[in-house]
Amino acid sequence: MLDEVRRYRRAEGWRGLAEFADLLALDNQTHDVDALRRNADAVAGLFTARGAAMAVLHLRDDVAPLVTGRLGTDPTRPTIGVYVHYDGQPAGRAGWHTPPFEPTLKAADGGTIPLPGAGEEIDDDWRLYARGAADDKAPLAALLIAVDALRSAGIEPRVNLVFCFEGEEESGSPHLREYLERHRDRLTADAWLLCDGPVHHSGAPQVVLGVRGYCGIELTVYGPAHELHSGHYGNWAPNPALTLAHLLASCKDDAGRVTIDGFYDTTREPSDAERTALAGLPPVEEQLLGQLGIAAAEVPGSRLVDRLMWPSFNVKGIRAADVGAGARNVVPATATASIDIRLAAGNDAGHMVELVGAHLRKQGHHVVDREPTPAERREHPRIVRLDAELGYPAMRTPVSEPIVAHLAGVAGTAAGRPAIVMPTLGGSVPLHHVAEILGAPTVALPIANNDNNQHAPNENLRLGNLWYGVDLFATLLTTEMESDR
Amino acid sequence: MLDEVRRYRRAEGWRGLAEFADLLALDNQTHDVDALRRNADAVAGLFTARGAAMAVLHLRDDVAPLVTGRLGTDPTRPTIGVYVHYDGQPAGRAGWHTPPFEPTLKAADGGTIPLPGAGEEIDDDWRLYARGAADDKAPLAALLIAVDALRSAGIEPRVNLVFCFEGEEESGSPHLREYLERHRDRLTADAWLLCDGPVHHSGAPQVVLGVRGYCGIELTVYGPAHELHSGHYGNWAPNPALTLAHLLASCKDDAGRVTIDGFYDTTREPSDAERTALAGLPPVEEQLLGQLGIAAAEVPGSRLVDRLMWPSFNVKGIRAADVGAGARNVVPATATASIDIRLAAGNDAGHMVELVGAHLRKQGHHVVDREPTPAERREHPRIVRLDAELGYPAMRTPVSEPIVAHLAGVAGTAAGRPAIVMPTLGGSVPLHHVAEILGAPTVALPIANNDNNQHAPNENLRLGNLWYGVDLFATLLTTEMESDR
Repeated sequence: MLDEVRRYRRAEGWRGLAEFADLLALDNQTHDVDALRRNADAVAGLFTARGAAMAVLHLRDDVAPLVTGRLGTDPTRPTIGVYVHYDGQPAGRAGWHTPPFEPTLKAADGGTIPLPGAGEEIDDDWRLYARGAADDKAPLAALLIAVDALRSAGIEPRVNLVFCFEGEEESGSPHLREYLERHRDRLTADAWLLCDGPVHHSGAPQVVLGVRGYCGIELTVYGPAHELHSGHYGNWAPNPALTLAHLLASCKDDAGRVTIDGFYDTTREPSDAERTALAGLPPVEEQLLGQLGIAAAEVPGSRLVDRLMWPSFNVKGIRAADVGAGARNVVPATATASIDIRLAAGNDAGHMVELVGAHLRKQGHHVVDREPTPAERREHPRIVRLDAELGYPAMRTPVSEPIVAHLAGVAGTAAGRPAIVMPTLGGSVPLHHVAEILGAPTVALPIANNDNNQHAPNENLRLGNLWYGVDLFATLLTTEMESDR
Repeated sequence: MLDEVRRYRRAEGWRGLAEFADLLALDNQTHDVDALRRNADAVAGLFTARGAAMAVLHLRDDVAPLVTGRLGTDPTRPTIGVYVHYDGQPAGRAGWHTPPFEPTLKAADGGTIPLPGAGEEIDDDWRLYARGAADDKAPLAALLIAVDALRSAGIEPRVNLVFCFEGEEESGSPHLREYLERHRDRLTADAWLLCDGPVHHSGAPQVVLGVRGYCGIELTVYGPAHELHSGHYGNWAPNPALTLAHLLASCKDDAGRVTIDGFYDTTREPSDAERTALAGLPPVEEQLLGQLGIAAAEVPGSRLVDRLMWPSFNVKGIRAADVGAGARNVVPATATASIDIRLAAGNDAGHMVELVGAHLRKQGHHVVDREPTPAERREHPRIVRLDAELGYPAMRTPVSEPIVAHLAGVAGTAAGRPAIVMPTLGGSVPLHHVAEILGAPTVALPIANNDNNQHAPNENLRLGNLWYGVDLFATLLTTEMESDR
């Protein structure tokens, strides 16, 4: 089967590539609902043309549509759900070498080349540059070409597909839950595939069973009511920048361990199967240290995957007055730190925020959730404002779910090298909605290259990765699978 | 004598005020050499019109002139030097209620009123708004009116005056030393008065004997070569914002004590006379806590003046990535803190920077004075870049200098209430050049109101303070003084 699919894509892949480029030419920046409607209609049109039964669902005028669909309705066959998001991160022109919505093909040496036509050879190392090329229109293109290839070879799929294409993922999926609850009847499947993210650092295909959850915290501490001349008052007026430094230093020690009471207590220990999966992962740390230009990890010698099994406490930004050319000789009036906590399985966002609040109080701070009043500032020598964004929990599908081994086999067959089973990604996606509402195991099956510049300028997809996606979906569609429901 | 001076200024003060307003209408922003030349010429012209022998001295085309002069040449009389700077801080329109170079008179209720004419009464609580109104053209106006008043009353001065009017103070006085060395013959005096800064918080007149010195330090610590996705790498990649927090927290404890080895060792203990002066100062702390809207000082219960006798370690700004609406879910690539150390008597800037460097090494950091190379970043898990601006030392004229008691008497007589002898201001001025090169004791004799918005928008001078300045200079000029040189 794969031979026939590969023959097809070598001869006719240019067609799929042209269609992909047309889809990428549609501005899909996540906050532009009008643009997103055009994308939704285009995506639905492409799948309708392959015989899928598609629906463009609307919640309200100011909400991007959810595109659902179904390809194959044989009740004796298992059904796989495919989740893809068609919206993209904002893309101003700054930093882009070519306009983000003028898809541009480049050779490995960086030279721009025209899209290939009939009979022209295509190099795996060419890359297509555009917002959404990798994140997350790539799986749509791969799926369309896979369906075309099977049809051209006269090969009948052995599984039904159900589609859920979202237009608000890059905005934090604010309406996904509502859409799923309202339309769960259209979205019945034995398992859901999340097609997003890159393949493993080693280049190996991977099946990812979970993501970390998320909660955001902003801490602001207060000094004098306005900035003061640091000569006249420095050494006497309290300095909020230094107070904040002490506070942050109290949250996580120099050895990388979070010292907030109870921070690690609710985390579910890895299961035996997860431990086995973790132990089998190839090391990436030396490669990463080189890529990132650093001498050691936060906890020297630690493995990335082991650290991802635990909640993180990351200071994503600090501000107090200014530094460098903008520095003024002042005692700052306030100091602020933005923090993100990535939640591991078992952690509850609200509970984690409570632990942080308790820690701040233990450090002698009066904790408020809004600007303190002048009276409060006169009363309490130490005040910290805590703003929390509760986010969502982590999700981990057990290694033991039958779909996991099945998908690892499919990915390995498609890639021609064994797939990696990764218990969790470090990032956060609101996967738990799918698991909770649709009641099916969820697994991520990434296809993009690691260096795809996801969320950044010059996002790109290496064509070899697009072809891997084609092979992956073709294999998935044609491999017999035990329905366990 | 004071009665006659006061009679004069009540009747004719409007003339001096009009002349003052004309001087303030000249843009004097510190980096505009052309504008500063116009100011220098105008100032020289005003004193020449009173019979002073003035000189506008030029060093180079791109350097603001130094204005020197002499009023009175009787070799049997003592000679007092008066230092004033005629340049002002930059003054964009932002934040100003009236244009900074359109001097505007306002009543105590905030209403704009025209400049008074002949015979009109003038309220002490009116304020004149303009850049430079307080800092530092006010003493020029007060001096001119005092000279006019004495002349009008036929009172002969008993001291000679020598003038040193600088045009680069707000730029850090980069050429003052060169000017003084080159022209020291013109600048011989028994003592120098620095006329700058505000009267005491309590409103009492004050004689200030010193200032703290200055040195600036900027620390930058390094994480990954570029910002990383905090989900994929948070908990594994080292976070420079947290490293910086630990580093700053290690420099100064939660109780306000600098924990850098040797930081306090070189500070000269207050002399007995300084202790007595300090003990006699009125408390201002409760008033300050109220004004600044804070519950306690950095060291709760400490007196401002006591803290100013010691070097400060002030974090004037911190930056790592961004916070608030600009926050991104990243591990920052670098984190930077700007620090100013105010030096006390006895401290050497270079030595203090060495102590900071030694402290950073003690914390396990590799210290560099430029951007670390990629090879250094791969080798050292902790690197801190230390950029130092060495600044200048503190200056304290001994309380026992005869001029101190003399000036305290003069100020007390002029104000009608006892003057405060303040061993040091918290701020920094390069006073040591005057003491070193001209070899005479230096004392600051401020006249401006405390809430003059020095360096900020809406700088202003309360007219009552201008009149205090007039009385002060008239008293100084007519009080017998023992020449001790």
